[in-house]
Amino acid sequence: MDPPEFSISHDPAALPDQLQAIFRSRFCSVGVVKTAFDELRSRLAEVVDLAKSAEILRWDEQVMMPARGAPARAEQLATLNRVTHETFTSPEIGRLLDQLADFEREHDYDSFEASLIRVTRRDWEKERKVPSSLRAAMSRAATLNYPIWVRARERDDFDSFLPALRESLELKREYVACFEGDYEEPYDALLDDYEPGMRTAHVRETFEYLKAHQAPLIGELGRREPRKPPEPRRFPLEEQRRFELDVVRRFGFDDSSWRLDPTVHPFARRGSTQDIRITTRYFEDKLDGLFATMHEFGHGLYEHQVDPALERTPLASGVSLGLHESQSRMWENLVGRSLPFWRFFFPRLKERFPEAFGGTSAEDWYREVNAVAPSLIRVEADEATYNLHIILRFELEQELLAGSFPLEQLREEWDRRMWEYLGIEVPDAASGVLQDMHWSIGAIGYFSTYALGNLISAQIWEKVHEDVPDLDEQFEQGEFGALREWLGAHLHRYGRKFTPAETLERVTGSPRIDPEPYVRYLRRKLGEIYGQPVGSG
Amino acid sequence: MDPPEFSISHDPAALPDQLQAIFRSRFCSVGVVKTAFDELRSRLAEVVDLAKSAEILRWDEQVMMPARGAPARAEQLATLNRVTHETFTSPEIGRLLDQLADFEREHDYDSFEASLIRVTRRDWEKERKVPSSLRAAMSRAATLNYPIWVRARERDDFDSFLPALRESLELKREYVACFEGDYEEPYDALLDDYEPGMRTAHVRETFEYLKAHQAPLIGELGRREPRKPPEPRRFPLEEQRRFELDVVRRFGFDDSSWRLDPTVHPFARRGSTQDIRITTRYFEDKLDGLFATMHEFGHGLYEHQVDPALERTPLASGVSLGLHESQSRMWENLVGRSLPFWRFFFPRLKERFPEAFGGTSAEDWYREVNAVAPSLIRVEADEATYNLHIILRFELEQELLAGSFPLEQLREEWDRRMWEYLGIEVPDAASGVLQDMHWSIGAIGYFSTYALGNLISAQIWEKVHEDVPDLDEQFEQGEFGALREWLGAHLHRYGRKFTPAETLERVTGSPRIDPEPYVRYLRRKLGEIYGQPVGSG
Repeated sequence: MDPPEFSISHDPAALPDQLQAIFRSRFCSVGVVKTAFDELRSRLAEVVDLAKSAEILRWDEQVMMPARGAPARAEQLATLNRVTHETFTSPEIGRLLDQLADFEREHDYDSFEASLIRVTRRDWEKERKVPSSLRAAMSRAATLNYPIWVRARERDDFDSFLPALRESLELKREYVACFEGDYEEPYDALLDDYEPGMRTAHVRETFEYLKAHQAPLIGELGRREPRKPPEPRRFPLEEQRRFELDVVRRFGFDDSSWRLDPTVHPFARRGSTQDIRITTRYFEDKLDGLFATMHEFGHGLYEHQVDPALERTPLASGVSLGLHESQSRMWENLVGRSLPFWRFFFPRLKERFPEAFGGTSAEDWYREVNAVAPSLIRVEADEATYNLHIILRFELEQELLAGSFPLEQLREEWDRRMWEYLGIEVPDAASGVLQDMHWSIGAIGYFSTYALGNLISAQIWEKVHEDVPDLDEQFEQGEFGALREWLGAHLHRYGRKFTPAETLERVTGSPRIDPEPYVRYLRRKLGEIYGQPVGSG
Repeated sequence: MDPPEFSISHDPAALPDQLQAIFRSRFCSVGVVKTAFDELRSRLAEVVDLAKSAEILRWDEQVMMPARGAPARAEQLATLNRVTHETFTSPEIGRLLDQLADFEREHDYDSFEASLIRVTRRDWEKERKVPSSLRAAMSRAATLNYPIWVRARERDDFDSFLPALRESLELKREYVACFEGDYEEPYDALLDDYEPGMRTAHVRETFEYLKAHQAPLIGELGRREPRKPPEPRRFPLEEQRRFELDVVRRFGFDDSSWRLDPTVHPFARRGSTQDIRITTRYFEDKLDGLFATMHEFGHGLYEHQVDPALERTPLASGVSLGLHESQSRMWENLVGRSLPFWRFFFPRLKERFPEAFGGTSAEDWYREVNAVAPSLIRVEADEATYNLHIILRFELEQELLAGSFPLEQLREEWDRRMWEYLGIEVPDAASGVLQDMHWSIGAIGYFSTYALGNLISAQIWEKVHEDVPDLDEQFEQGEFGALREWLGAHLHRYGRKFTPAETLERVTGSPRIDPEPYVRYLRRKLGEIYGQPVGSG
């Protein structure tokens, strides 16, 4: 146990070998005059250290912490976040950025130096535009309104959530006002938080294409014979875990840099590019946990393959939520719901769960995990219907921000669109307008990135297949190294050096998110599964 | 996965319910004028939040982190420690302490307010007396010299460790010089870091008593018939874990506030009084892990039972290493190596490991786990010989600090005392003078607290038995609640409100560490085990 002092330096049990590295880097430069760039780097390194510390503590909170540790942990995270934010937004960082203007021009746009300064300046200026009183009010509203949403959903009581939603929206309008003149329309300011540089107009145009070309596919499938649901099956949890590890180890998960743990809501976190933690959940009667694991693996791999030279800088991270989601959806769906994948893994799955899969073939199972059925809940939606859930939210969010209808009417607006886009009647608010927590914490503008991620995944997928034509054959052999390495070399290694659009251009040749590859992909796959061409129009 | 921003506020998956608490406490006071005391409290709360964050990250590093996460984690911990130290030693804290001098006098010595100010002032003044350049040099030396010690021990090469040890000693002398006039002798300044208020003269006198009264016991036992070692046994690890949980759950471990995990070197850490993490290690052929678990339980229980009203203050912690060790040794030895304990648990142990304990009785096992045999290695020493290992180090440390002999001679000085105190010949430096890591990281003055902990445990033990005369009968029934509650009410709840001596006085009626109860305890126990009175003199 620690000595009672705050410092750790006295505790013999606490001193790890590798501390050496830091102290060398920290003290061997004593007496050397630091350049402004070194100074910027070392301040940013501290910001990153604090942010990553908080990230591991959040992982711990959700995966390891005894339940009664929660109140103290909440305080610890709040303090860490405050210190991180203060360290980053200090005027000293601004002074260094000013001093470094010439230095930045002297370096190539692509260089580490110019990229670090450019990205830091953008982050810093955006943070500084928002008064800290407004940031505090937003945080406060988020934390107070979240439990109100939890209760409203539990009780299926939409009206009790209205005051919280009204406050969230008012704060978001104040937030948008901080960026007067920076954007073409108000919603842009919100999108930009999650998908930097993305504009509402482009998302709108993209989603109109999906409404015209993706929605009809579902209508068409809806008229076909529904599949017979399989017999109830049992999947012992320990065997599920073993199977998942078999899968992700072939993808590139290794114990020296990764962990996989069970949790309630799956997520991924990282302490560094070499400390990646993914989580999943298990059900006794279905293999949803496997798909969650592959999804989180995709997020983890993006962070894992960022160029190690960017470590301890704000560049060492995936560049946007859309790009990130493209990676998780790729491993979950384009790989994990593909026939070549199951040609390799299904015999192994059957071996582990012989009773569950007695008379089932790889092809049967492939059809089963790709079955299309419009449903109420976004997080349970299949590939063919998922984007429509997002489009609905994207449209409503803009109308909410603009105040296009009285807030009391939101529920009807939701239900009407569910019928229009998915042909579904919403029985209650809990499985309708109250299903997601995002609005309760003011995360408005976030949803779009899920659909954008789907679209980007297919754009990248076409490109990978051009470069690696025998990818399917490799999957059938259980080989995923070529895909992993391609993604590392063409996308992951850049981290946040470039904007999302610049990054996408480096990967696919075009800076624009394009919905066509995704619709092509869906048509081909659904045609295969439903035995005839679908939506050939 | 996180959005790329540093803030967490945008990540819907990251927002835990309980964050509510903080924001309420943080924002509901907006507009209210804070008193100096509130201001001090809130600054200290941040210091504690940062320190506890680091503590959980160290737990994570040793128990959960993938191996390749180490370099980044080292940086994160260094940053956290630096920020913690800067926040605590800021001149603002000193200014608040000055402002609060009258406020402190207006409050009872025992009050929360006066205690917080008094303890903070002592910590702050001690920290401020040491120039940060010296602190940095000490940290640097610790981290650079630790791996040198590892290598020296591996290669059994004492000479290669000498330059590192010389540097440690020189820095310690500089450190001592910062406290000119505060102490009676130089070694006092070092002791005070681990056992605040303890003086070398008192430890010396105490240890002289042990040399006169404890050492002879061993000589006497050494002349008796050695026990036949038991047949080799196998203890499946999962069964060990289950048995340990049976034991500590009866002690007071519960899953809502505690964790038990395997590690390499057992230790205890806490995120708060309600988030206690103990670790242990398992061997296939012996039950040492059980004793490590009970030991760490004792540390954990002390932290767990600190008054929750002290949470997020520097008072929420055990008061000294000696008092802490008294608690770990009590649960490990006075409880866990007692006959009443095994009368209850041995039948359960036998049920779990029927092959290992075929012909063994509770009494046989009790004798086995209390067998006395002088040995080379401190951490493997039994209750009867342990303190002698400490006395040897205590004496050598003072001579090292004083430069009483050339450093090259240290090895011979060590070996000579091992022969004198324990009757053992030291075959090599690795199992002699190089066995402990403490000196490599400058932890000089630390060892004494291990022996002081043993002595205090027996002092408290006598007192508990006065208040709860049927404690042994309770143990025989598997009841440990009375002991746990007594310790909570008489010791744990105080945290760091009082000095170690004041705390000891509240528990036992006397502020002095007294070696007699421990020697009495040893005599009685060894007499029981070896079948006749031992050292009746």
